[in-house]
Amino acid sequence: MVDVLTDLATAQSLAERLLVTAGVPAPAAAQQAELLLVAEAKGVPSHGLLRLPRLLRRLGNGTASPTNTGKHEWLSPCYLSVDGEQGLGPVVALRALEAVVPAAERHGVAVCSITNNNHLGMLGFYAGRMAERGVVCLGMTTSEALVHPWGGTEAILGTNPLALGVPAQPHPLVLDMATSQVSMGKVHDHALRGVPLEPGWALDAAGNPTVDPVAAKCGSIAPFGGAKGYGLGLGLGAMVTFLTGAAYGTAVGGTLDDTRPSNKGDLFILMSGGGHSASEYLDQVRGSRPADPGAPVAVPGDGARARYQESVAHGIEIADELWRELTALDTTQDAAQPEAVLAE
Amino acid sequence: MVDVLTDLATAQSLAERLLVTAGVPAPAAAQQAELLLVAEAKGVPSHGLLRLPRLLRRLGNGTASPTNTGKHEWLSPCYLSVDGEQGLGPVVALRALEAVVPAAERHGVAVCSITNNNHLGMLGFYAGRMAERGVVCLGMTTSEALVHPWGGTEAILGTNPLALGVPAQPHPLVLDMATSQVSMGKVHDHALRGVPLEPGWALDAAGNPTVDPVAAKCGSIAPFGGAKGYGLGLGLGAMVTFLTGAAYGTAVGGTLDDTRPSNKGDLFILMSGGGHSASEYLDQVRGSRPADPGAPVAVPGDGARARYQESVAHGIEIADELWRELTALDTTQDAAQPEAVLAE
Repeated sequence: MVDVLTDLATAQSLAERLLVTAGVPAPAAAQQAELLLVAEAKGVPSHGLLRLPRLLRRLGNGTASPTNTGKHEWLSPCYLSVDGEQGLGPVVALRALEAVVPAAERHGVAVCSITNNNHLGMLGFYAGRMAERGVVCLGMTTSEALVHPWGGTEAILGTNPLALGVPAQPHPLVLDMATSQVSMGKVHDHALRGVPLEPGWALDAAGNPTVDPVAAKCGSIAPFGGAKGYGLGLGLGAMVTFLTGAAYGTAVGGTLDDTRPSNKGDLFILMSGGGHSASEYLDQVRGSRPADPGAPVAVPGDGARARYQESVAHGIEIADELWRELTALDTTQDAAQPEAVLAE
Repeated sequence: MVDVLTDLATAQSLAERLLVTAGVPAPAAAQQAELLLVAEAKGVPSHGLLRLPRLLRRLGNGTASPTNTGKHEWLSPCYLSVDGEQGLGPVVALRALEAVVPAAERHGVAVCSITNNNHLGMLGFYAGRMAERGVVCLGMTTSEALVHPWGGTEAILGTNPLALGVPAQPHPLVLDMATSQVSMGKVHDHALRGVPLEPGWALDAAGNPTVDPVAAKCGSIAPFGGAKGYGLGLGLGAMVTFLTGAAYGTAVGGTLDDTRPSNKGDLFILMSGGGHSASEYLDQVRGSRPADPGAPVAVPGDGARARYQESVAHGIEIADELWRELTALDTTQDAAQPEAVLAE
């Protein structure tokens, strides 16, 4: 496989142009593009530019709305319910969070629940942004059924990720984790490269353990951490369903296809402090004795932050095929030129 | 080892009498005893009667207060801050939750943060009770440092459990999980019985992997689920610290000793519905194809509920030594008689 090396600004402006061409107002296009590029820069390409062609198709066929930003209904002074109206995931979510932050600061806690919203992208982005504003953020979203229960064999759970941001100096704690053992994107990547999966990652369609990525694509992924990870994933999914009224289980669609409205649910809980800074504690953890003297203990978010800085300095690598697809779509001006083409 | 078989009511009234003798008012003694006995009945003896002798010593030497129920301060209409005043954990927490439920029902969300409170016991008890009242409950508490970071070798994290209750019919989802691979109670149990640990459970004091439970007692326990479980445990701990102002890391004390005031933090987030019931989804998960045809897929809380019903029907087994210790303390009347003594 060949990758293209480009800088963040070039890739972001390409994504923005494509979104604007699809009818998205410039500020919203910038928000959507930023989410995709931050994921690339932090080393999570499954939430990066890979998702842009599908999003453009959804905008093109009217499944996603280029202009809707969500209908806000305050159920109480600290509970905002949002109908995302099939707007762009980050545009709807960021507008909702901006509305909810003052409520959390005033009342100590505030919630926004969101339905009918497109894919949010990297959930940790929101948790990190809120934590930098001084607010604790718990973020949850449901997804297509890809994961089997502990002791089960059918894909009936979403990858149901959890993000948590806790304010601290010099950097917040930013946790962003799916409750699956691996992502379906990783299974597809192994299939593409012909590399077997690790044992315990997946089952085939008949429910038998498999290390064949092609068989796993039609099967299911394991929850992370055994019974506990299963319980966490199901619990988060059930909670989001109960609070948002979103679809559940195998009825969830719209983040991995071109044509179905997005019917999953998103939930954010924001809380403002009353205790004391966690900075000293996090530094104690970072400074504790590592297993490998060359690899200091990291706090959630440290690794992604380091990768982001590396990407700002040295650019990001995009799969050649994806880059060609995106630049071919870019009819507004001469196609963007990557800095280099890398053989891998 | 020999176990004593007793019924729940006999054991509960023994615990209540001992607490009343220590100066605890009868209704509070009943609450504290219920928490201990529910844990026994659900098969979690580490949170059961084992903790009563220590609690009685704490009451006896003035470290715990038999009568304080917590000082309530409403920071907003939906944020209750509680100074537990070293009262009994369940007494302080249940009174706080009763105060917060109406706020959650009215505003959609409400929080209570608690400091200076003794050990809560089984965290799932609270989540289950709230879910039965129709309210989603996220419960968190911090603990003594027993767990090492992912990539680290020192005990600097608490076992930082998470409980989640989601209303459903006929039974709520009740998740109750520590973020450690195993409990330190389990390590002590292996040491007592001379049974080696499983690889990956623990490190010795020097930070090397060990299956020797005696070496592990002075070392540290692994987080569950690798880097994700570590991130979750540290994230929950940092969040509770930030919101409550409780102690963190190696400074936490008072739930495993007789003499230190309890300085950990407790946090509950209650939310009331706006979506739809999760009952149908949970039943779909329960009805999905199991890996073992004889073992249907369970939803968090199902196993504990079945064990509880079994205990109500057939009694509970208490370690003979512990039962002797408790009955010897019971000077108020003739010692309670167990139904039978079992050789194991």
